[in-house]
Amino acid sequence: MTASEIINKKRDKTHLTFGEIKFFIDGIVSGTIPDYQTSALLMAIFLNGMTDKETSDLTKVMANSGRTLNLDMFGGLAVDKHSTGGVGDKTTLVVAPIAASLGCKVAKMSGRGLGFTGGTVDKLSSIPGYNITPDFDTFISTVKNVGVSVVGQSESFAPADKKLYALRDVTATVDSIPLIASSVMSKKIATGSNSIVLDVKFGSGAFMKTPERACELAEKMVSIGKNCGKKVAAVVTDMSKPLGYAIGNTLEVIEAVNLLKGANIPDLYDECVVIAANMVSLAKKIPLGTAVEMVKECISSGAAYVKFLEWISAQGGDVSYIENTGKFPAAAHKLEVLAENSGYIVEMDTEKIGVCAGILGAGRAAADDTIDYCAGIILDKKTGDSVKTGDRLCTLYTNDKNKIADAEKMHLSAVKIGGTPPQKTPTVYKTIL
Amino acid sequence: MTASEIINKKRDKTHLTFGEIKFFIDGIVSGTIPDYQTSALLMAIFLNGMTDKETSDLTKVMANSGRTLNLDMFGGLAVDKHSTGGVGDKTTLVVAPIAASLGCKVAKMSGRGLGFTGGTVDKLSSIPGYNITPDFDTFISTVKNVGVSVVGQSESFAPADKKLYALRDVTATVDSIPLIASSVMSKKIATGSNSIVLDVKFGSGAFMKTPERACELAEKMVSIGKNCGKKVAAVVTDMSKPLGYAIGNTLEVIEAVNLLKGANIPDLYDECVVIAANMVSLAKKIPLGTAVEMVKECISSGAAYVKFLEWISAQGGDVSYIENTGKFPAAAHKLEVLAENSGYIVEMDTEKIGVCAGILGAGRAAADDTIDYCAGIILDKKTGDSVKTGDRLCTLYTNDKNKIADAEKMHLSAVKIGGTPPQKTPTVYKTIL
Repeated sequence: MTASEIINKKRDKTHLTFGEIKFFIDGIVSGTIPDYQTSALLMAIFLNGMTDKETSDLTKVMANSGRTLNLDMFGGLAVDKHSTGGVGDKTTLVVAPIAASLGCKVAKMSGRGLGFTGGTVDKLSSIPGYNITPDFDTFISTVKNVGVSVVGQSESFAPADKKLYALRDVTATVDSIPLIASSVMSKKIATGSNSIVLDVKFGSGAFMKTPERACELAEKMVSIGKNCGKKVAAVVTDMSKPLGYAIGNTLEVIEAVNLLKGANIPDLYDECVVIAANMVSLAKKIPLGTAVEMVKECISSGAAYVKFLEWISAQGGDVSYIENTGKFPAAAHKLEVLAENSGYIVEMDTEKIGVCAGILGAGRAAADDTIDYCAGIILDKKTGDSVKTGDRLCTLYTNDKNKIADAEKMHLSAVKIGGTPPQKTPTVYKTIL
Repeated sequence: MTASEIINKKRDKTHLTFGEIKFFIDGIVSGTIPDYQTSALLMAIFLNGMTDKETSDLTKVMANSGRTLNLDMFGGLAVDKHSTGGVGDKTTLVVAPIAASLGCKVAKMSGRGLGFTGGTVDKLSSIPGYNITPDFDTFISTVKNVGVSVVGQSESFAPADKKLYALRDVTATVDSIPLIASSVMSKKIATGSNSIVLDVKFGSGAFMKTPERACELAEKMVSIGKNCGKKVAAVVTDMSKPLGYAIGNTLEVIEAVNLLKGANIPDLYDECVVIAANMVSLAKKIPLGTAVEMVKECISSGAAYVKFLEWISAQGGDVSYIENTGKFPAAAHKLEVLAENSGYIVEMDTEKIGVCAGILGAGRAAADDTIDYCAGIILDKKTGDSVKTGDRLCTLYTNDKNKIADAEKMHLSAVKIGGTPPQKTPTVYKTIL
């Protein structure tokens, strides 16, 4: 068996065997297969696809390419959650304490965001004192005692994925369903939870632009998870507008806290309920309908909020900031963006809203960029809302005054105002089991 | 413009512009584009193809990626010839002196063979004294004075092709018509002849297995050549059996000499006449029918043989070997391979015959392997011939006695004897102008 023969097979649309996939991935990790052969295979996979069997095999091999966690100590209650990423997506901050509060064990490793807005660990890092890199024993004991711990993704898990991703990024082979699905699932499989709930987003702010394509990815990931012996659900959700009203690290933490304290944020609430309920349903083997009621009750009773405080505290975070979110440092500069005409917001280019947040300092373009935790956007108006000329569309926050004019332009260019209200669409499009 | 964007376009079947192709090839040659991006583009080209325009642009850019020759000093009479390669293919040795004898200027650079049997420069190197690396001025003055010079391909021409070919070889992207066509034509364009005659072979001993695929490649190369301002003809020829009866460097030189001296070798004669006539017709702008008669006359009169002696002599070769081919050193060992049953040779696996010659020492597997010039095969029977058990199929020649049994087995396994004679097929299948 040679790398060239394996590339040749995939080039000719022949299915690869487990042994062939393992040979190639082992070669990538050990360095015996050079990058130029890997990128040729990636392009062949991009253009010729992979069957469910091949994608599952690739996932298993990548999951086993480095360190793996065994969470059997939690008696099958370990549940993980993954989002394909969106603008204003702070669901983990909400659903993790809910699931923990209802008896699940959430041992979550989360990637740092590389893009317009921070990832979950960036959001958590904006809470003074929160330690995203506790030692392994502390991580496990926090899950055991509190029910939830969210830490930074360790590079020792699925190193094959890291190598593949770096190459995909520079060879135009990112947007491939088998490659995306195996990348996500390999890390989830390696980190050992028994159940996995996936939040697969579509729309202008998501990687998948259409519900159909998001469903395709969701189905592939569910199939892989099952082939790897996991309980899996995928919730396909709308990212044609930002989720909730806050975008930016501190701003999103505050919004998540507000929701847990009982604030009315319909789209974020709906989505979090469905995701949390699926986590509880899978992990505790109870009907989804029952789980939904439990989740709602858990929020309204304040139990989830209490669990949130317990979790943040266990990881060293200063909960006085949570109890009084006014304590969070405010951005030095703010600007109200006003509507330039009247009508209805018929469409938001959500990716541009993300870029706007990035301009303000909420994200990082390169791995070593610094994030401005205070930076971001608080929306007043979203798709479907009626506006009059001069109405406030949003407020921009930043510590870099020079960026604020560009951000304003970007936000205005992202919001399309028209004469007729757009059709209402639910936040949760579909759940795939 | 980035390499990634260009890969992305080809991945999505968008046509690349001249500027994009130039940016990529320049980046490959200068080393600013890494191999892993090049191989991703190669696989995308392999799977999504290239238009005639793109392939011509790629050819032009590769042709101009290094040194180029200008042969305008020969007033439009400079003509080149290229074969896609086959077993027993000694046509250059025959057609080059014919064309020169009829007033063409053949300034040919030829690659060393890497494979079962040697390339043209290996065959010529088997003539004692023949210099395949004269200095540039000697090369040009030989063409001017004698009408023909055949030298080794210099690596300073089309260096982009060399880089691309090395990558294609290890990324399963060799067998792509736009990549093959641009590779061949870039070198032909760079070396400056005004007319180019291509010999595109098909069958069990050729790279293209079917006449259809050979015609497809031939048409692509003709189109590229015309787009680059050249006069081009492609002769599509049968390689389902070896060409002529001799395989191996010295053995092929002797067969070519015999043909020029008037020996009756029908398939080799037919093919050489058509190729030489196309060279003469293109270079001298005379009708093909007239050129065919001139070529036949040139052989029968002995003029081509005289030109051959003049050429070999001009490049330092000892013509006493040509005048008396019995002077060539003979192989130390020979073995007659006998038919194991009676009937007709219905099929020859010509690639296996090539492998057999390789086993005997006639070729090189790696660039630094040494060739045994005496080694090879003289066939007695070819496809269509009737044989009786015990008839001699061929004689094997080698200086390595240990290899001869394996070679015998290989030859026997390549020859299929059946009860019914196969349909006769002409050597020249088609000429594409």
